[in-house]
Amino acid sequence: MSRALRQLAFVLYPGVTPLDLVGPLTVLRDLRLRTPYRTVVVGGRAGPHPSDTALGLVPAATYDDVPAPFALFLPGGGAATLEAMRDEGLLAYVRSAAARAEIVGATGNGALILGAAGLLGGRRVAIHWAFADLLAPFGATAVQEPWIQDGRLLTAAGGVAGIDAMLQLTERLTSRRTARLAQYAMEYDPQPPFTIDRDAADDGLSGLLRGPSTTGALLGALR
Amino acid sequence: MSRALRQLAFVLYPGVTPLDLVGPLTVLRDLRLRTPYRTVVVGGRAGPHPSDTALGLVPAATYDDVPAPFALFLPGGGAATLEAMRDEGLLAYVRSAAARAEIVGATGNGALILGAAGLLGGRRVAIHWAFADLLAPFGATAVQEPWIQDGRLLTAAGGVAGIDAMLQLTERLTSRRTARLAQYAMEYDPQPPFTIDRDAADDGLSGLLRGPSTTGALLGALR
Repeated sequence: MSRALRQLAFVLYPGVTPLDLVGPLTVLRDLRLRTPYRTVVVGGRAGPHPSDTALGLVPAATYDDVPAPFALFLPGGGAATLEAMRDEGLLAYVRSAAARAEIVGATGNGALILGAAGLLGGRRVAIHWAFADLLAPFGATAVQEPWIQDGRLLTAAGGVAGIDAMLQLTERLTSRRTARLAQYAMEYDPQPPFTIDRDAADDGLSGLLRGPSTTGALLGALR
Repeated sequence: MSRALRQLAFVLYPGVTPLDLVGPLTVLRDLRLRTPYRTVVVGGRAGPHPSDTALGLVPAATYDDVPAPFALFLPGGGAATLEAMRDEGLLAYVRSAAARAEIVGATGNGALILGAAGLLGGRRVAIHWAFADLLAPFGATAVQEPWIQDGRLLTAAGGVAGIDAMLQLTERLTSRRTARLAQYAMEYDPQPPFTIDRDAADDGLSGLLRGPSTTGALLGALR
């Protein structure tokens, strides 16, 4: 078997939700020992990118550096993701990299970028609840699950759900033992204080998270 | 009541584990609506800092910008934290900011920096399991809990445990309703595939996580 390195590429764009990126990245970077898998964060340009928190994020590479990753992941980013859906450079990279990737994934509302790139037709997709209704124009069906695998497509509804999904992916790519060690190494033993009621009214949160320009941004992306 | 802003400051240092920073930051930034609380990421210098993943991190402020935060949090960072324990500029800032802070916290092994700053004497502390035995020289006791509040000290053993702790803090600072909405907004509904056995042998992981220079670094920090 070839031991050529296999890149697990996370795409960074302005306004990303850091948890959507960092949760999965943390799991998969623990694959690096004794495997051909290596994580990389890829941006449209070098240097700091704003996030939707008080933290800037810097990619380790740009699109040209990672033309053919083994896996491609799109983190979510709230309203900023709706802007990213109109970024032709980003969409071109996503299409090109996804064409040869064995795994294509997203967390939060990152699946919308995959949709805008034309990669979701007929797929079942997990997505942040506040953005679920925006999947239909792309021919995709939103599922009310934390994460779902549909063919080579692996989507998770949020950053912590992305951790769950990536631990399962770790088991698939390596072994149950390695996946268990990855979970143990990151002290992932959650005890959330509240339960999430997916059928509850969202108390106006959806509008806040999507921002005022959702409809226009989406229509722009679909043009 | 004064509506002066209250800063919730996360301290960034080279080699931080992004999840230890980003999990808690994501919870607390959702406090910003209709409250005086504002998150800020503080570094010893402006510009990109390396993390222990393929992602650089950029603080929004430097020490001088945030002299008196309401709360001060130290993320963990694997072996790099042991180096940070010897950073006199960092320790001076931590001591000075903590002196007036109402809440002092840490995630992962970040508590070791609080220890090096002399802030853990007699305290019960949650810390990443691979570093728990390093607390004793600081007069602190490691507890086998995901997180613990001891007086104004709030420590969590990892990034996701930090999310749990910060959701409880959110409830305390605001209301149960706000905390529940914060959890819902971030889609925090974990379903980890494995259970963590805290009494299990660590399979050599501890040595890997701590790096080869643990003892020397610790002794240096204690000098």
